[in-house]
Amino acid sequence: MKLIRFGLPGAEKPGVVTDAGRFDVSAFGEDYGERFFENNGLERLSQWWAEHGSTCPQIPADARLGAPIQRPSKIVCIGLNYADHARETNAAIPAEPIVFFKSTSSLVGPNDNLVIPRNSEKTDWEVELAVVIGKKASYVEEKDALSYVAGYCLHNDYSERAWQLERGGQWVKGKSCDTFAPLGPWLVTKEDAGDIDQLRLWLTVNGQKMQDGNTSNFIFKIPFLVSYLSQFMTLLPGDVISTGTPAGVGLGMNPQVYLKAGDVIELGIDGLGTSRQQAVAYK
Amino acid sequence: MKLIRFGLPGAEKPGVVTDAGRFDVSAFGEDYGERFFENNGLERLSQWWAEHGSTCPQIPADARLGAPIQRPSKIVCIGLNYADHARETNAAIPAEPIVFFKSTSSLVGPNDNLVIPRNSEKTDWEVELAVVIGKKASYVEEKDALSYVAGYCLHNDYSERAWQLERGGQWVKGKSCDTFAPLGPWLVTKEDAGDIDQLRLWLTVNGQKMQDGNTSNFIFKIPFLVSYLSQFMTLLPGDVISTGTPAGVGLGMNPQVYLKAGDVIELGIDGLGTSRQQAVAYK
Repeated sequence: MKLIRFGLPGAEKPGVVTDAGRFDVSAFGEDYGERFFENNGLERLSQWWAEHGSTCPQIPADARLGAPIQRPSKIVCIGLNYADHARETNAAIPAEPIVFFKSTSSLVGPNDNLVIPRNSEKTDWEVELAVVIGKKASYVEEKDALSYVAGYCLHNDYSERAWQLERGGQWVKGKSCDTFAPLGPWLVTKEDAGDIDQLRLWLTVNGQKMQDGNTSNFIFKIPFLVSYLSQFMTLLPGDVISTGTPAGVGLGMNPQVYLKAGDVIELGIDGLGTSRQQAVAYK
Repeated sequence: MKLIRFGLPGAEKPGVVTDAGRFDVSAFGEDYGERFFENNGLERLSQWWAEHGSTCPQIPADARLGAPIQRPSKIVCIGLNYADHARETNAAIPAEPIVFFKSTSSLVGPNDNLVIPRNSEKTDWEVELAVVIGKKASYVEEKDALSYVAGYCLHNDYSERAWQLERGGQWVKGKSCDTFAPLGPWLVTKEDAGDIDQLRLWLTVNGQKMQDGNTSNFIFKIPFLVSYLSQFMTLLPGDVISTGTPAGVGLGMNPQVYLKAGDVIELGIDGLGTSRQQAVAYK
């Protein structure tokens, strides 16, 4: 199953994507948030869809997409989880996952504009595979970890490199600006995602290929990450884990390349769809 | 005005504290969360209280207190914001605020148990003054910053030092465990907080004074912090900024001292009340 949310920012409605199109499932009566996932929402929605799907209206072709989930309690990100990206940023291969948070206020729809923050000179891109947690996870063992996963989404972990790396030691300042977390287009449920360790992911800027990686190059795989994080904090239903980016970010180029107003960023992951952001200046 | 929330975890009800006691204001019909603050809730509650306060039932003396606000979108913390604490941890006085996030799933009531996480050997305490944001703050100027503040609370920013400092560079792993953010007892509104730059704050472990500081020693004061953070991210109504801890944490002692099951931690800030946590082992 593929879940989307559509409509104006802050007033998104739930939808479902099938081979036949995109359908409004507002009549199901629940949005895709913590309570939905916690109360077995995916299974209930699937049953409801089997019964009522044929009566659901199509979503207009020009409808804006929101993030495919409601604002989660946290967006946990993994740093340097692809060996080639660690190399390009002159960082050592981490001995254990590097973990940081992105503010949840940075979350936007997959095709919303990227607003380059005021005074930013080093806004950079990072195509990433994001995991959405399906049930409360605390002290989970690696062998059980996938049972705590609801599904997966495409994510662009935008990063202001000067603020991340040159402003006092912690990364959060460069990771949390508004519009820095376009998520989607859809959440694909775990069962329908294929082999999550064999997905190609790519990103272009103005049509030029910048990133072209594969999740087969994960240093730490998803079951390990879920288990690992759950030793330090409780992951709540609907929480997001963004699993790191492969090589090809602006920070890693010589000379470094950063985004400017007018740039168009497109990205995708096999089976998780594509997204497109236009960079605009803060007004 | 002083706001509290009381009742079982996850089912807290709103209350008000006055010189006459603690009163259940469930009849007001709103909990103290993002929507409440965003929609001018403090002023509306104050008006409602003037009219209906005399009919509100007392809160039972043995009622558990929850955090005085609903789970916020983020808990932003400032590192090393007292010069004496920077010295004791052998850190330089920061040139600008050090910023990190605590997970919001770490939030608990002021007198709930501190659960020492599994395999933790360095769980430490940090008495802090927490700011609660009253309205959406983005690119706010320092001179206007206090108008974005709803009020203040007592906070204990528990920290697992090994996980914060010895596990891969970012602090979040040592800051986000369940029960690591006891908040309250109450939120005191800005107008009733007195001179926020002249508040004594203290913490004891098993009755022994460990921290005894004063907010007059802030390196970065609250209006600056609100303005500064709002350049990097939008602060949402109900968000928490924890302003750093004075000297006297376990990490700064020689030899270092960490918490163990059975320890009792008590803390307070002038006008913001006191809280008490009993440390227990994870079961």
